[in-house]
Amino acid sequence: MKNGGVTAAKGFLAGGLHCGIKKTTDPDLAMIVSEREASAAGVFTRNLVKGAPVVLSMEHIKKGKIRGIVVNSGNSNVMTPTAQTDAMAMAQAAGEALGAPAERILVASTGVIGRSLPVKKATAGIGRLAGLIGPNGGPEAARAIMTTDTFPKEASQSLLIGGKRVTIGGMAKGSGMIHPNMATMLAFITTDAAVSPAALRRMVRQANEDSFNSLTVDGDTSTSDMFIVMANGASGAPMIKAPGEDYAALQEALTQVARKLARMVVKDGEGATKFITINVTGARNRKEAKMAAMAVAKSSLVKTAMFGRDPNWGRALCALGYSGAQFDPNRAKLSICKTMVFKNGLAVSGSVPRGLVEKLAKREIEISADLGAGDGKAEVWTCDMSYDYVRINAEYTT
Amino acid sequence: MKNGGVTAAKGFLAGGLHCGIKKTTDPDLAMIVSEREASAAGVFTRNLVKGAPVVLSMEHIKKGKIRGIVVNSGNSNVMTPTAQTDAMAMAQAAGEALGAPAERILVASTGVIGRSLPVKKATAGIGRLAGLIGPNGGPEAARAIMTTDTFPKEASQSLLIGGKRVTIGGMAKGSGMIHPNMATMLAFITTDAAVSPAALRRMVRQANEDSFNSLTVDGDTSTSDMFIVMANGASGAPMIKAPGEDYAALQEALTQVARKLARMVVKDGEGATKFITINVTGARNRKEAKMAAMAVAKSSLVKTAMFGRDPNWGRALCALGYSGAQFDPNRAKLSICKTMVFKNGLAVSGSVPRGLVEKLAKREIEISADLGAGDGKAEVWTCDMSYDYVRINAEYTT
Repeated sequence: MKNGGVTAAKGFLAGGLHCGIKKTTDPDLAMIVSEREASAAGVFTRNLVKGAPVVLSMEHIKKGKIRGIVVNSGNSNVMTPTAQTDAMAMAQAAGEALGAPAERILVASTGVIGRSLPVKKATAGIGRLAGLIGPNGGPEAARAIMTTDTFPKEASQSLLIGGKRVTIGGMAKGSGMIHPNMATMLAFITTDAAVSPAALRRMVRQANEDSFNSLTVDGDTSTSDMFIVMANGASGAPMIKAPGEDYAALQEALTQVARKLARMVVKDGEGATKFITINVTGARNRKEAKMAAMAVAKSSLVKTAMFGRDPNWGRALCALGYSGAQFDPNRAKLSICKTMVFKNGLAVSGSVPRGLVEKLAKREIEISADLGAGDGKAEVWTCDMSYDYVRINAEYTT
Repeated sequence: MKNGGVTAAKGFLAGGLHCGIKKTTDPDLAMIVSEREASAAGVFTRNLVKGAPVVLSMEHIKKGKIRGIVVNSGNSNVMTPTAQTDAMAMAQAAGEALGAPAERILVASTGVIGRSLPVKKATAGIGRLAGLIGPNGGPEAARAIMTTDTFPKEASQSLLIGGKRVTIGGMAKGSGMIHPNMATMLAFITTDAAVSPAALRRMVRQANEDSFNSLTVDGDTSTSDMFIVMANGASGAPMIKAPGEDYAALQEALTQVARKLARMVVKDGEGATKFITINVTGARNRKEAKMAAMAVAKSSLVKTAMFGRDPNWGRALCALGYSGAQFDPNRAKLSICKTMVFKNGLAVSGSVPRGLVEKLAKREIEISADLGAGDGKAEVWTCDMSYDYVRINAEYTT
């Protein structure tokens, strides 16, 4: 494989550069282009307050076919008088440079809310970038979408479909929230599989549910989140239109790539020192399992306890209790790092179980709960909450 | 008025002492007794995981009449093999000492989860304390229920009902969450008004909604929260059984006392440096207004920004957007400390409004949002999130 990321699959070009939106000299503009028109599907933030790029991309993706995506970091282009026209200007600039209609271009932006985008810098940058993109440009693009991320996030995977080698690769930026940015999560995956837009839409929703929708860094949902998948068919593999063996294989691989990216986003959470997996089993159904796991994952008390290696499992039990999931505490079990701490309504040990504090020194922590109420299960990822989280987020915007 | 707190009203005795539950020499046992049987009503945690004292008190309060309440700090008596019998032993000890049936006693406990209560110390302490309680013991009781609270919380108010002076007084402990305690909030209010149990139940629910249910320190709901009101009729004022002028006057005063206590709880939030009021107007209804205000109040991003005097109003707007309240961002307005920052879908100023950073240096901050969608409104209180919040909650339990 030539490289990971959005140019791992055949027929995709990408790149990144500094066009002047960020005050530093860091790259702030990225582009992903398919050599031929690709099927596309995405999921977008459910926040009522949506950035202009989100609104534009939701509209452009409706037809299921796109040529490329242009992404800037440093300004989210949200809630300014010119936000809509600025987003459209970026799509038009990219369309002109690529010889494609503007409605075949998606736009994503991440950064401060409510400040005007320097749109001329952006459109000029798009013109230059269109001449620089190439089949090995994935890593450059991955760097250009970073904001508070401490490392670029790329992943890829290959499989055989109809005897043809199909590749899936992608990049993401983290949920880092720093002055003056919002908690934006962006993820872009490309594949040279051939998939109909309708089938791709179903696949993306499923992959999202098991990856980006299963993580929380601090519970806030940004105005600009999006996750887009492009499939251009360049592998020559047979077209996937409906569920079946090929569909299932591609779904599995797509979900795996999305999960790898999602785990990197959590590991790079602001100030994070630990990766925490919350596994809930025995809920009445999948929905309640996820509610229960998310309540534990979002609890500032649990997250600070894990930072401090504090085996205060009562906080996790408490979060399960207020999650909205229905269960009988007397039938529930709770383990931390495989050490059973609560069972049959009772603490397993009167004091802190032996060896647990030592296990909490590790970088990967698992909290597992069996609610004893049914077959529903869910896995959710989060990070701990440290002094650095407060420091990073308490800095002045000005 | 002789003093604030639970002995401000006529016919109530209270006190506190150290019985040995806490490892320090701080008081850890409190008692509130009415000289005659009193009407009583309460609200209890909605957490599925309820402490044994909560379960016992919910049962004992059903008949609407009690003689007293015994409270310990230092151990929440939750989820241990003997929790139920220990809670009952405390009620029995208090009943015997006071010459009342055990089912006329409520029990509240706050502290670590899952460790056995030293019940003999508690019952012996109750016996001693019954001999020490007096009509000026409110402040002692208020100190004895403290855990991580940095100051005791008492409030009182008087009014005339049927020409008689009626007094309402109360105490609370904060939502301090420190090793190894849970986020327990306890509040006890006494009044010498005469109120039927049924009328009192309605009043308590209303007072709670506008006070303790309108605050959040970190969003966690404890296993042991309770808010109890006792009304013994010792003022000689006429009995209130149904809505009317007297009912409304008492409701107003009760709510005011509860609000004073609730505000103290927020001001004493762990590591708090600022008191933040979130006012939402223009929601479709009261429920959505509260959802919107609570989303802002619970956002770690908003809370860290306020700690850092960061006028990053985009975070508040974002929280409104994901709160679940329905509104059109283009019709919404947002102010911080009376400075309008967002209006008609646009930032009021391209940069940070003049003077806003200086206003954010104050200890009291107001964030106001008008959603432009209806008449629903709600006020919610919270505190900022500081380094100390992380420090306090990251300490070892062991």
